[in-house]
This record gives sequence, C-alpha cells and structure tokens, in this order.
Amino acid sequence: MRLDRKSTNSDERKKTNLPDWSLLVPVLPTAGKRTPALYRELRRLIEAGSIPPGSKLPPSRDLAARLKTSRGSVVAAFETLIAEGYAVARTGAGTFVADRVPNVKPAVPLEVDPVPPAMPLPGTLGVAMADARMLNRFRTLLTRHLARPGPEHFHYGDPRGGEALRQAVAAYLRQARGVRCEACSIVITTGTQQGIDLVLRAVLSQGDRVMIEDPCYPSARAAFAGNGLVLSGLAVDAEGADIARATPGARAVYVTPSHQFPLGVTMSMRRRLALIDWARETGGWILEDDYDSEFRFAGPPLAAMQGMDDSGRVIYLGTFSKVLFPGLRLGYAVIPDALLEAVVALRSRSDRSPPTLAEAALTDLIREGHFAAHLRRARRQAEAARDALVEGLSAAKSLSVTVPDQGLHLVAGLPARLADTAAVEIARQAGLGVRALSAMAVTNPPRQGLVIGFSGFAPEVLRAAANRFALALG
Amino acid sequence: MRLDRKSTNSDERKKTNLPDWSLLVPVLPTAGKRTPALYRELRRLIEAGSIPPGSKLPPSRDLAARLKTSRGSVVAAFETLIAEGYAVARTGAGTFVADRVPNVKPAVPLEVDPVPPAMPLPGTLGVAMADARMLNRFRTLLTRHLARPGPEHFHYGDPRGGEALRQAVAAYLRQARGVRCEACSIVITTGTQQGIDLVLRAVLSQGDRVMIEDPCYPSARAAFAGNGLVLSGLAVDAEGADIARATPGARAVYVTPSHQFPLGVTMSMRRRLALIDWARETGGWILEDDYDSEFRFAGPPLAAMQGMDDSGRVIYLGTFSKVLFPGLRLGYAVIPDALLEAVVALRSRSDRSPPTLAEAALTDLIREGHFAAHLRRARRQAEAARDALVEGLSAAKSLSVTVPDQGLHLVAGLPARLADTAAVEIARQAGLGVRALSAMAVTNPPRQGLVIGFSGFAPEVLRAAANRFALALG
Repeated sequence: MRLDRKSTNSDERKKTNLPDWSLLVPVLPTAGKRTPALYRELRRLIEAGSIPPGSKLPPSRDLAARLKTSRGSVVAAFETLIAEGYAVARTGAGTFVADRVPNVKPAVPLEVDPVPPAMPLPGTLGVAMADARMLNRFRTLLTRHLARPGPEHFHYGDPRGGEALRQAVAAYLRQARGVRCEACSIVITTGTQQGIDLVLRAVLSQGDRVMIEDPCYPSARAAFAGNGLVLSGLAVDAEGADIARATPGARAVYVTPSHQFPLGVTMSMRRRLALIDWARETGGWILEDDYDSEFRFAGPPLAAMQGMDDSGRVIYLGTFSKVLFPGLRLGYAVIPDALLEAVVALRSRSDRSPPTLAEAALTDLIREGHFAAHLRRARRQAEAARDALVEGLSAAKSLSVTVPDQGLHLVAGLPARLADTAAVEIARQAGLGVRALSAMAVTNPPRQGLVIGFSGFAPEVLRAAANRFALALG
Repeated sequence: MRLDRKSTNSDERKKTNLPDWSLLVPVLPTAGKRTPALYRELRRLIEAGSIPPGSKLPPSRDLAARLKTSRGSVVAAFETLIAEGYAVARTGAGTFVADRVPNVKPAVPLEVDPVPPAMPLPGTLGVAMADARMLNRFRTLLTRHLARPGPEHFHYGDPRGGEALRQAVAAYLRQARGVRCEACSIVITTGTQQGIDLVLRAVLSQGDRVMIEDPCYPSARAAFAGNGLVLSGLAVDAEGADIARATPGARAVYVTPSHQFPLGVTMSMRRRLALIDWARETGGWILEDDYDSEFRFAGPPLAAMQGMDDSGRVIYLGTFSKVLFPGLRLGYAVIPDALLEAVVALRSRSDRSPPTLAEAALTDLIREGHFAAHLRRARRQAEAARDALVEGLSAAKSLSVTVPDQGLHLVAGLPARLADTAAVEIARQAGLGVRALSAMAVTNPPRQGLVIGFSGFAPEVLRAAANRFALALG
C-alpha cells in the first residue's frame, strides 16, 4: 500500500511566517473601525484558528493603511492581544500569534443562561396534559433502551421509521380505526404537519388546484398555500364537507371526516361515499386527517374513511402529539401503494428518518398495552375538562355553545353585535386563550365564533378562566 | 348560554334500524367474492364501528343480489358473525349487529412481532459509536426531565427549537468554530439533510442553477435534484472547490470547506475568500456543510467559512448525528438575517418544531460540559479507528491510501485495472462496507476510488475486515 500521510490544509499550516494578509483584510471590520472592534475581531480570528498559531501578523503600518484607520489604533489592538497572551512581540521580527492560544476550545462548561419557556393560556388549542403515569412509563422505557441500546440508534435507518413501530401503529390503526394497512405502507412522521407536507410535495405541483374544508385547520391551509397550490374552500354543513360543490379540476381535497376542525361535525356516510367516488372518478387524492378520533365521549367512533376506500385514493394522517405530548414529535401517515415510493424517497432526501429513541419507547408503550390504558384515562380527563369549560362558560348569557361528543375543543357562537376578533381580546384579558373562527375561513365568507380548547389544563383551571371570560362578556 | 348537546354524527347513530345499506355495498368486497372474504370484511366494518352496534344487517337475498354472489354465501357469512358474537338473529325481524361488539378496542397488548434491526458492515459511512459514558449521561438527563417535565413539552414551541438549546449551540459554534451567530439565528433541525432541504425550499426556485462540489456528498445531491434545481459539479483539487470555474448564473453553491466530502481536502483560505467574493458580487448563496470538523486529529482546525463572511451570504450547517448518534436526529443551521423569516415560516409549516425531550437533554449535555468531554474521547477513538483501518488495508499492495488528519472516512485509490464498483463487491464479500467514489460524481468525469468509513466500530473489528478485504484484493 502506498501511504500518503498528508495534512489536508497544507497551505495555511506550513508557512508560519506571513500568510498572505492582504487576503484577510476583507474579513476584518469595516474600514475606519477603532481599536476595540479591531482587537475583538483579531482575537476572534485567532481563537477560531483562522489566523493559525505562530503566524506573523502584518506590519501595523500596512494593516492601518489597508483598513483606512490610524496606525495607533492597530498598535493598541496588537498590544492588547500581547497583554492577553494571544500574540507575542519578537524584537526585530514583528508581532506573531502565540503558539498556544488561550481558550480555543471550551474546557469549562459554556456560559449560557437558561430561558424559562412561555406558558400558554388555558383554552389554547394543541396543549396536552402532563400525565404523570404515562410520563413515568415513557421514562422507564427510554431508560431501558438507553441501558441496552440496539444498533438501530447508531446508523441511518428506514426513511419510513423502524419496522417495529410501523407494525405496532398498523395493528393499532386496523383495530381502533378500521384503517386498511400493513407496516410497509406506514410512514412515521414528526406529526400531521409533516405528513401533509410530504404528501403535497410528492404528489402535487405548484399551481395545482386543491380543496380544503372551509372553515379549516389553519396549519393545513399554511402547508397547502406554502407549497404554491391554488386553494378553494369546500363549505361544511351539518353533514360535513360536500364534494358536490367541488371546484372542477381539483387534484386533492383535505378533510377531517371524524370530527371536522373547527366545527366539530362528523362527515355523514353519504358524503364519505360521494367523496370516495369523486376521488375514484377524477383520480383525485383525499387527505384524511383523523386528528382527534381517539377522544370520543359517547357511542362508538365512526371508522376512518380510509377503510372504506377500495381504490387507494385516501392518504390517512394521524399524530401522537395530542394523545401523548406535542414535544414528542411523532405521528404517522398511511400511504397508498401508488404513492409510497415517491413519499419514501422524499422523506429520505428531506429529513432522512425518524428519531430512533423516541420510536423505541413508543413502540413498547403501544405493544405492552400502556398506550391503550393511557388513552382510556386521557379520554375521561378530556371529558371532565370539556364539562368544566362548558360550566365556566355557562355564566355568559350571550354565548351559544355546542357541546362536542368528541375531540379537544368546542365552538361558541357570539351575539351578532360582537366580532369574534374582539371577543378573542376580551378572553385574553380574562386569561382564556381562544381563537377567532373567522380567521379559519378559506374562500367562503368567514363565520363568526370562538374556538376554545379544553386539553392540557386541569378542569378547575379551565372552569375559572372560562368563568372570568363569561363574566367579562355578560 | 344556549346549550346544544348534539351528537355530531347523528345520521348514523339515531337509526338503529336499516341504515341505507345500498350505500355500503361499494365498500364491501368486489362482486362475486365468497363467504370468507365477505365475513372478514363485514367483521372489519363492525369492529371499526362503520356498521354501528344494534343496526340491522340487510336481508341476505338483497345483499347477495347487490354483491352478485349466492345467497348461501351471505347466509354462511352471517352465521359466522352470529357464532362469534358480532351479530344476533332475531326471529321474524332479521339479523342485527350485536349491541356490544367484541374487541373493538385493544384491551390486551397488541400482537406484533419484534423485528431485529439490520446491522451495517464495518466501514459503512455514517455509523456512530455507542459510547456508554455519553449514553449513560444522556439517560440521566432525559430521566431528570421526564421526572419534572417543563411546560415546553406539552404545547407547540418555537419552530427554530427551544431558546436554551439555541443559546448553547450558538455559544459552542462561536467558541469551537468561529461562527458568527446568536441564538436567534440558529434553527435546530433534524440534521444536515433537513437544513439543506429547508434552505433550498426557502431560497431557490425550480429550475434555478446551483453548483455542488464534484465529487460530492450524495445525499446533498439528492436534496438539490429532488427540489428541481439544475446541478453542475464544481471540480475539487488540492485546494478544494474552485469558484473560478463556476457556471454563470448559479444561484447557490454547496461546499464542505473544512473537510471535503469525499476527497478530504480542506479548502484553502484563498479559495474561501474567492467564494465569499463570488457570493457578495453575484448575490449567490453558500451552503457550508461543516460535517465532521469536530474530528480533527492534528493541529488546530481552520475556522468555519461562515465566520469570515461579512456579507451574510453563508448558510452554516451542522449535525449532532456524527458526534452523538444518528438516531438522535438533531442538527442545526445558522441562517443569515435576510433568510431567517422565510426559513422559520417554512419550518413551521413543514414540520412545526423539534422534539423537546431530546432538545432538553442535549442542552444539558452541552451546558454541563459533558458534550465537550465526549468530543475529546470521541476524537481519540476516531483516531485509533483510523489507524486500525489503515493498518488493516496495508496488506493490499495495490491500494494507495490517503491518511486523513480529520474526519471519519478515508479514500483509497485502486489499481487502474479494477473498477471501484467491482471493488465494492469484493469488499462486501470480505465483510467491509465501502462506497464507490465514481458514484459520487456530479457532472465532471467520475474518479475511481473507494470511500471507507472508520466510525462506529471497534478498531479490531475494522482492522480485521480491512485485512480480509486487503488479502482478497492482493
């Protein structure tokens, strides 16, 4: 074997005298800067290794001329560097960067101030409850995996996520939601948002027409609009969105059939079948966001639309953010065969694969039955939170509240005299975090109302905040 | 308050007799199917709640006619459902779905088989070492956070990632790499791949011309090509990529100045400054992937290019995948002010925000000095692994190996008679995972050689695999 033990940045390293300093002038501070700025910049470059140890600094006169500053400023900067050990003066030879520069690497812990995270108001959507039992279980499972970590954590894995989690999710979705799927067609995502983004990028092109329920989930609208698609709203009535009102030429439709966001209606069987027929006939795609189907308080849930589709036109999206916690960043998409290759390739080149440690703990959580047990508790907690919110709001004569039998939020109607955007501000001042329904419109005329969440806070906290708001409103 | 306690899917729930069965026929198995398929499909729909408890099944004669199958097949399917408790026969009234359907929800742990993850061969690129000390520390920190979880885990956070981690990363990058940055311009990513994808999507448009070092990091090439950009390769010589050979009209260039992937050369100061000048003059963007600068075995590292750029044209990308473990899925991008708003908005609508638990543990790892200590150990381990690989390869007279003073891989030159793709196969049979240099070309003529990693495996394992390959090669 021929061996070539070469230094890879030979041009800097071998000349300890006079690297071509004129080249460094552009990176020094803007011309005319005084001593402190010049000193700081030189020290930074020395500390960072950009001016290597032992190299000669340019004559102060030359540097001053190039920087259009006084020679005295340069000399003073050099003297500070010498005093601090960054440089040495050699009589008759000039000023040199020290051979050993202080503190190039952080030998001591870095000085950074901890930042207290902001706390959302009760009523804010998308907040999850800190469930001590689930978190303890999650901790035990994470600890187990970190004590005997498998090889999957140490190399890049399947872009869809680990097979064990995909199997567990597929089994769960088949049993709980009637989804037709196998592990091979599951893609573990960072949540519904990534699922939507991946599908739009893999399937649609800029300028394509798409439909989205109106009013809608604003983050979905942002994903569609951000990908350059032409949106039109599909009006929602008591039976859900109605595909009969579709824009001609639409290539995809985004729906929340289980519990429409934000209005809370469940899409009727008739509408579901019409939507599936539309997709089959036009070759369109249905994005089914089954976002809070886990939280059903009365009666059995209606199964996912995906399970009724024989033609492979439904992309099914879900998340663990709401049932576990949003900071987990794990969700799933069930991808029809025809799209699988494109979605997997895109996932690979856009962010490779999911995090393996969280995956491993979640797999065990599902497999060992803790997830199902947690879901039952979480459902009861959500129901109690819903009741507390409704009770708190009941002091307001002017509100009309639809009590949902599923989900984690409700919609309140306002008196005609009060704009929902104004009511949002009244609520904020009362310590309740609500959203204006009018801000969730797509292309249809905005409706007025308030969207209020009831997850993530203790019933008494929700009740108190809702009551303050109700009293302020009258 | 007016209270409307309505069921949200009233049309299914209120009629316990005869839902409109003709609507369900399209979702039943294809016409002509026999009993077993029909039974399975009906059971699935019942379990999933698509056919609600208590509802009447259609007369067997009607269903048989609609499905174009024999009445006997339908009756047999109904009888199986009755035998298993999914349905009940009421004399004179017909067959009904049972009021309580067995096993609608997983009450017992799901039956899923654990899948052993695949194990890569020694020499494979991108594999990290399971460092017990770091993993134990990580476990302690995760446990601490899960025992007293902060509110940041339970709602959606800053799309850039938590401020505490961004501060810690900014301080680390300033000290260790001479990067000019504050926490506000850091975006925590899932790794370099997401950093590249976010920047390309936020900054460039389909059809834009871009340049990429040639030969290149194949995953970067995939991200560029996948976003519809027109690529040209920028040839790499002993001083790194040379912007003087740029394609006119290029809007961005992707470089690895610290340690070119795959060739291993460090870009000279001259070339760096020329590249910065190019960006300033043309308004082009530089994507600086500083991918293995943490692993420098001899002499101080040259600082990042980003720190030499006064004009805000460099996007700096890095990852914790290589210094910690790939399954962690955490990296960072330092975004120039002019791009920050666009990148943050894109991150928010494409996958919201990073996982908070891993963030919290990593923040502590950096802040408390464990990360710096781990880095020193990891660097020594990598150096020992490099030496073992070189030693193992030394038995092959026909190889010429360039021993790198940085990084986690080396390049070996082959005799003219042997194509690198053929050598890859010889290596695989000897149990060494190598990549063909020729497969990493962009638009310049492919070079021949092997790219061999030395991370993630014990020195003796690498030495043995390399030795087997060397003996096979001769």
